Amino acid sequence: MSDKLKDHCGVTAVYLKQKGDVPKSLFFSLFALQHRGQESAGITFIESGNMTSYKGKGLVDSVLSPYVNKFFDSSVGIGHVRYSTSGDGGLHNVQPLQINCNKGNIALAHNGNITNADFLRNELRKEGAIFQSNSDTEVILHLISHSKKQDFYSAFLESLSKLEGAFTLVVLHEDVIYALCDPYGFRPLYIGENSDKILIASETSSMSILKVDDYSAVKPGEVVKIDGSIVVREKYIENHPVRQCIFELIYFAKPSSEVFNYPVTSTRKKMGRLLAKEDSDDLGDIVIPVPDSGINAALGYAEEKGLPFDFGFSRSHYAGRSFITPENEDRELAVRMKLLPVKNIIENKRVVLVDDSIVRGNTINILVKILKECGAKEIHIRLSAPEIKWPCYFGIDTPNKEGLVSNSFLPKDLAKKVGADSIKFISIESLRECVSNPSDFCYHCFTGVL
Amino acid sequence: MSDKLKDHCGVTAVYLKQKGDVPKSLFFSLFALQHRGQESAGITFIESGNMTSYKGKGLVDSVLSPYVNKFFDSSVGIGHVRYSTSGDGGLHNVQPLQINCNKGNIALAHNGNITNADFLRNELRKEGAIFQSNSDTEVILHLISHSKKQDFYSAFLESLSKLEGAFTLVVLHEDVIYALCDPYGFRPLYIGENSDKILIASETSSMSILKVDDYSAVKPGEVVKIDGSIVVREKYIENHPVRQCIFELIYFAKPSSEVFNYPVTSTRKKMGRLLAKEDSDDLGDIVIPVPDSGINAALGYAEEKGLPFDFGFSRSHYAGRSFITPENEDRELAVRMKLLPVKNIIENKRVVLVDDSIVRGNTINILVKILKECGAKEIHIRLSAPEIKWPCYFGIDTPNKEGLVSNSFLPKDLAKKVGADSIKFISIESLRECVSNPSDFCYHCFTGVL
Amino acid sequence: MSDKLKDHCGVTAVYLKQKGDVPKSLFFSLFALQHRGQESAGITFIESGNMTSYKGKGLVDSVLSPYVNKFFDSSVGIGHVRYSTSGDGGLHNVQPLQINCNKGNIALAHNGNITNADFLRNELRKEGAIFQSNSDTEVILHLISHSKKQDFYSAFLESLSKLEGAFTLVVLHEDVIYALCDPYGFRPLYIGENSDKILIASETSSMSILKVDDYSAVKPGEVVKIDGSIVVREKYIENHPVRQCIFELIYFAKPSSEVFNYPVTSTRKKMGRLLAKEDSDDLGDIVIPVPDSGINAALGYAEEKGLPFDFGFSRSHYAGRSFITPENEDRELAVRMKLLPVKNIIENKRVVLVDDSIVRGNTINILVKILKECGAKEIHIRLSAPEIKWPCYFGIDTPNKEGLVSNSFLPKDLAKKVGADSIKFISIESLRECVSNPSDFCYHCFTGVL
Amino acid sequence: MSDKLKDHCGVTAVYLKQKGDVPKSLFFSLFALQHRGQESAGITFIESGNMTSYKGKGLVDSVLSPYVNKFFDSSVGIGHVRYSTSGDGGLHNVQPLQINCNKGNIALAHNGNITNADFLRNELRKEGAIFQSNSDTEVILHLISHSKKQDFYSAFLESLSKLEGAFTLVVLHEDVIYALCDPYGFRPLYIGENSDKILIASETSSMSILKVDDYSAVKPGEVVKIDGSIVVREKYIENHPVRQCIFELIYFAKPSSEVFNYPVTSTRKKMGRLLAKEDSDDLGDIVIPVPDSGINAALGYAEEKGLPFDFGFSRSHYAGRSFITPENEDRELAVRMKLLPVKNIIENKRVVLVDDSIVRGNTINILVKILKECGAKEIHIRLSAPEIKWPCYFGIDTPNKEGLVSNSFLPKDLAKKVGADSIKFISIESLRECVSNPSDFCYHCFTGVL
Repeated sequence: MSDKLKDHCGVTAVYLKQKGDVPKSLFFSLFALQHRGQESAGITFIESGNMTSYKGKGLVDSVLSPYVNKFFDSSVGIGHVRYSTSGDGGLHNVQPLQINCNKGNIALAHNGNITNADFLRNELRKEGAIFQSNSDTEVILHLISHSKKQDFYSAFLESLSKLEGAFTLVVLHEDVIYALCDPYGFRPLYIGENSDKILIASETSSMSILKVDDYSAVKPGEVVKIDGSIVVREKYIENHPVRQCIFELIYFAKPSSEVFNYPVTSTRKKMGRLLAKEDSDDLGDIVIPVPDSGINAALGYAEEKGLPFDFGFSRSHYAGRSFITPENEDRELAVRMKLLPVKNIIENKRVVLVDDSIVRGNTINILVKILKECGAKEIHIRLSAPEIKWPCYFGIDTPNKEGLVSNSFLPKDLAKKVGADSIKFISIESLRECVSNPSDFCYHCFTGVL
Repeated sequence: MSDKLKDHCGVTAVYLKQKGDVPKSLFFSLFALQHRGQESAGITFIESGNMTSYKGKGLVDSVLSPYVNKFFDSSVGIGHVRYSTSGDGGLHNVQPLQINCNKGNIALAHNGNITNADFLRNELRKEGAIFQSNSDTEVILHLISHSKKQDFYSAFLESLSKLEGAFTLVVLHEDVIYALCDPYGFRPLYIGENSDKILIASETSSMSILKVDDYSAVKPGEVVKIDGSIVVREKYIENHPVRQCIFELIYFAKPSSEVFNYPVTSTRKKMGRLLAKEDSDDLGDIVIPVPDSGINAALGYAEEKGLPFDFGFSRSHYAGRSFITPENEDRELAVRMKLLPVKNIIENKRVVLVDDSIVRGNTINILVKILKECGAKEIHIRLSAPEIKWPCYFGIDTPNKEGLVSNSFLPKDLAKKVGADSIKFISIESLRECVSNPSDFCYHCFTGVL
Repeated sequence: MSDKLKDHCGVTAVYLKQKGDVPKSLFFSLFALQHRGQESAGITFIESGNMTSYKGKGLVDSVLSPYVNKFFDSSVGIGHVRYSTSGDGGLHNVQPLQINCNKGNIALAHNGNITNADFLRNELRKEGAIFQSNSDTEVILHLISHSKKQDFYSAFLESLSKLEGAFTLVVLHEDVIYALCDPYGFRPLYIGENSDKILIASETSSMSILKVDDYSAVKPGEVVKIDGSIVVREKYIENHPVRQCIFELIYFAKPSSEVFNYPVTSTRKKMGRLLAKEDSDDLGDIVIPVPDSGINAALGYAEEKGLPFDFGFSRSHYAGRSFITPENEDRELAVRMKLLPVKNIIENKRVVLVDDSIVRGNTINILVKILKECGAKEIHIRLSAPEIKWPCYFGIDTPNKEGLVSNSFLPKDLAKKVGADSIKFISIESLRECVSNPSDFCYHCFTGVL
Repeated sequence: MSDKLKDHCGVTAVYLKQKGDVPKSLFFSLFALQHRGQESAGITFIESGNMTSYKGKGLVDSVLSPYVNKFFDSSVGIGHVRYSTSGDGGLHNVQPLQINCNKGNIALAHNGNITNADFLRNELRKEGAIFQSNSDTEVILHLISHSKKQDFYSAFLESLSKLEGAFTLVVLHEDVIYALCDPYGFRPLYIGENSDKILIASETSSMSILKVDDYSAVKPGEVVKIDGSIVVREKYIENHPVRQCIFELIYFAKPSSEVFNYPVTSTRKKMGRLLAKEDSDDLGDIVIPVPDSGINAALGYAEEKGLPFDFGFSRSHYAGRSFITPENEDRELAVRMKLLPVKNIIENKRVVLVDDSIVRGNTINILVKILKECGAKEIHIRLSAPEIKWPCYFGIDTPNKEGLVSNSFLPKDLAKKVGADSIKFISIESLRECVSNPSDFCYHCFTGVL
């Protein structure tokens, strides 16, 4: 999926049992979540009793490293990395959003999409609310402030009850942390603890980098309150259908992470295996992945088929696209800079090229072209996701139906269009087999069914 | 006044009779107001029907020049330069502040201080308002949004009626500009027009740089509405005492400007003349100013006394203080870098050193020290402002009473303390003589009387 | 080899058959060589008859992208990426070095190390040469200028005859390009041509990115002259022993490249195979590579042993070390940020960890520690390079003998020291088997024999 | 002279009697010389036995402030600010230039122009010298290195004897400082000493900022050697005609400085007086200067004529021209941003506008236009320099003869052309009267006579 479905965001929160460098812990946790959002980064924490935010556009390292090697008299904070889905990319949309209202000082960061945000914004406007951004985050804060409930937690729960959509939130209210997962459980969220700290993060790679070994998933509809070292977990809604995003397992999450209680790497490998199993053709001499998105599935595919696996593309670690301005976007050039072919691996081979998914179909054709230039005899494309035919209901930044290439081409026609000899997608059935609780996942982008 | 009273802000607004480069006009107007605020700069304008803001910390040139040489499909906009008085210097406090609410899209920039802001903020919080900054500007916007009046203008006037303090505002509501002066008329505001444009600005130097020759002062309590090329001016409050800030004439305004209908340069020269007239001593060989704050008064003093005038200090045009961090603030070094003495003008002379005022008294002693090093025989300090004994009621960033050196030392003791032979301040009476409507000005910082 | 042997540099040159964007071609070629030097980048080319250089510290993208989207009236140029081996990292050492002398305008960039540079520098100083840098490059230019030969080419050849060491050079003399490989052939250099251009580059990945399919290696002791579209290749020295750097195949070159006529990826995989073949132990459940340096060899090892291959470490694509200043270098933190473990792949496994080499031994111990934290039952380290015991004779930036850990510890003791269960290195014999002309390679760092 | 004759450069050197922060002393000295060159700044000093340079394009503050608050184990250094006259503005031309050669480590910075540089460069090229820049500085260093004299000082003197033109130099040879003034004495140079340090600088403002009270001018043809605390001064050439640049007194030097033993401010005032004396017309109501270049002469003119002096233009302290690119250079806009008129001072007045000189004549016409817009009744321009008719022989960056407006227009025609009522220039005779040794000055730009 080089023509990519944009991920939403990553969130984190930390409580240090001994006061110390909260910004440093948030920095490392966000660094491990960087793949979830590269547009902006930010943290809010309590320092000497005051709520303070540092945030900006850019990567975690450039935005936050100035604050890492300082000591702060501080024990709680929250953090966020953002890829914008709602709201534009303007500076006023960088999270966490910190405010003061009748419930006190609040900072909030969220990963997700409030599907009834426009309705809520309109209602709030009627009551006098002013909006400085167009992010969903501001809507939630207004709801809390406008709630008639006196105490923060009641107001917070009341506000949550009005939200529709998918979201995980981390909130700092004065010096108390709240973290929650929406009732669908659409996005992953974990809580962990070691001798030094309590940590909340979207994925367990944050736990790993901060040496937090003891962790568990926050459940759909569960809210966690961290007040000093006391952790209270409770469901704020019961008996709600669960719809975890299967694309976290297919593509979004980092291979080193666990999400929704599944190890990402192994699950992807299993997708590759099952994709191979249902693939009756035996047309390949070698299996090569599209790096990095297709690596794990390709390994599974190769093992299942008993075919050799190798890297036919070498990925550049140097971004190097600053000269490609939006006006002169040159997709082919960008692909050629990122993925250099390894000719002698490709030449005269029947290549099975494995990736996770095809969205718009405007990258795979370039890869096929490069493989042909290098002398591939045949090219068979295999995808560890089914055909994507529906825009994400919960707000992932997918194209509309017309933009999804699988709505316009059957696999065999798509193969022809991109210049390949065949294209096969994993079946929904095999995909469901990769998890033990398949009915708790959302397959809407493949099926149109919620 | 090198140990300086901080000015507040500068505001501007423009309507172009032919659509064109609103940001460019705002840039030049703000450039001419740069002396009123160097901390941040910003503009908001309507482009192709959308309200857009560009703002940032730093000087007008660095923040706004990226937008000057582009064409924008645009005819209205407002702008602001800021030196923070209320609110901290954080990015969320940079003006104009642009919001969306039940009254539509609004951008607001203001120069001044709302003295009942804390009270209003508290009332608004009770009604559910959330505050992202601690600037007064946000309070005004909440008042407008929370007003029960249906149309913007009624809500705006209602909101104004709740504000106490001193303020000039420029507001963009959709594509209509509003500009107003508080009932005290504490801060200057001008409106002008030429064949191309209608221009609002804190001082007439903006008119000069944009070749607007036909202008007049906005009156205390007057609101101006610019809707297309139609200008409506009306008083929104009548029969209110007027208290124009005399320090605009003494120090804040640019010498090339007119404020409150007075030309700044000549008024300052008159202060120097009257200061000389009431100064019975005849102790000087030469009159030298503290550049630039004392230049005009020094010229007046020298003319009245028939003494030669010359530059005993040469001012550096290169800021050059980036290495002086707040932690190692070295006031003497900073003064020595900015003001280089001209030895042969000072040597063996009885020097009359003229400046506008003394606030904390921590710069004048360094100047005396330098004059002595250069061989001055006697040093007589003369100030074109009376002794400052009261913090500004309307929010200029003065020290508290303990910090005002004139509360601790009589002039003759102050002279001894700073190493001078004598110090004299202009009298209130002479200062009042410099303007034709003295009772319309505020002298609270000298007298404690409002 | 995460504790890494620093590579030298990358060089390139281009002749466009139609005048056009020479800087753009150089940009792409250097981008494909970025892994050979990240400290600085530079280009020199002829524009409208004038020799012009753009260079600076940093990556190719940041230094050169300002020049990529402009048109230049230009057909020849050379380029360089640098990791400093001789000379410090100062700006005056950034290449190409452009000069004017009695032989005309010359620009020169080089990859390598002149072992008699100090002697030559001293001789040249006696003749009046002044040195603005301490790079070898400047020495070569002085030799050319001081040569009594009248024409450039004769002077150039004479100068070359005085150089000892290993070096590839690209030179621009007025509008003629020269490229050469030292007689040992220590560093790779390629020349290619397509319908648009003639291209010189250290590795063939540059050919790939610029779609130059027809290329060949420049031979040891061969000089190439490109004068307009006329290419002359000749040996400037005959019958010289050849010593190609085997470490280019083990580690330095990009996997997508061919160097010394060997495809890099396949050769590394073969090293892994032969390493497995001579490894009598059969102790692993899974083979995991140290990314990216151990990937190809690990694939070969796994295939030979019939063991599963998987990614036990997930590499971060976000550098993120800007806050680790030289003063607080924290190697463990840096490793943990770059390589995140995939717990469920490691847990309860007997892990065969494959990398290319061990130099100082101060990274492998951190990886072992992380594997143990993740529950690895046993850890067996396998290296596709033999034990490194001698500093590079030709100037790769290796530690001295004391710094090379294999001089202090036998493999079994080293295993104990780093916490592993076993460590095995490939034998020299197996390594020699990986190439068809083993006596043309240098193994000095392993054997001490030239 | 707003259409300005570019100054050359400023040089400085320091010896600290106690080891300490040499870069800090150089910083302050260069800051006081900033008006002599804003293109680049640099320092070279000995730190722990090593010669080190920090330099870059931009102002002293931005280039050097990173080095000011550190301690360096250091007692000697030299510094330079540059406005390029010979050599382009490229980074390789930023001074001091630091080299190593057979005479040891040398750093050199110079202010001036070697008129036979091309000849010398050619000779040196024949001997094998390579040139990395096109600055004169590099030529001098090559001469020293190529000298057959064994010791540095002899070689240095021999090299000097080959140079023609005007130049002041500061040189660091190992840890010894040399400073010298060319035999013409064209540029000023001072040496001073206090209890802490020995200081060399182009102007005495550097002495003032560093509190060095005891100083004297370095004589034409004199070389100063500072070896530890031992200062040796000797003439290296005798009986040579002296030609000090009168424009240093008219325009270049800072008003707070003494140059050529003359206090700048007073000398300029005297020029104004004598200009007034020979001006038989009595046509003015007020004298206003072009700030800052005309201020001192205007004061003298006003005093002599008994006319009031005032500031009719207020100068902006904020540069603000970053958006005026070379391609859209808008001279009028730039002037209007820098100099804002003070209308009520100008209106209905017969204005005497005083500046130092007219070169191209493309600024004075804009000032006249602005004065007329403000209602000036008459405008009489008076210049404290005679008509400039010859390009500078010694290398100041003047236009060629065609570019000098006084070669095309008699004063009365020039007045008509720029829209003024009259223009008068001081006579050569009066100018010579302003100094006590007029035959030691160069008036070539006025007379064509050397």
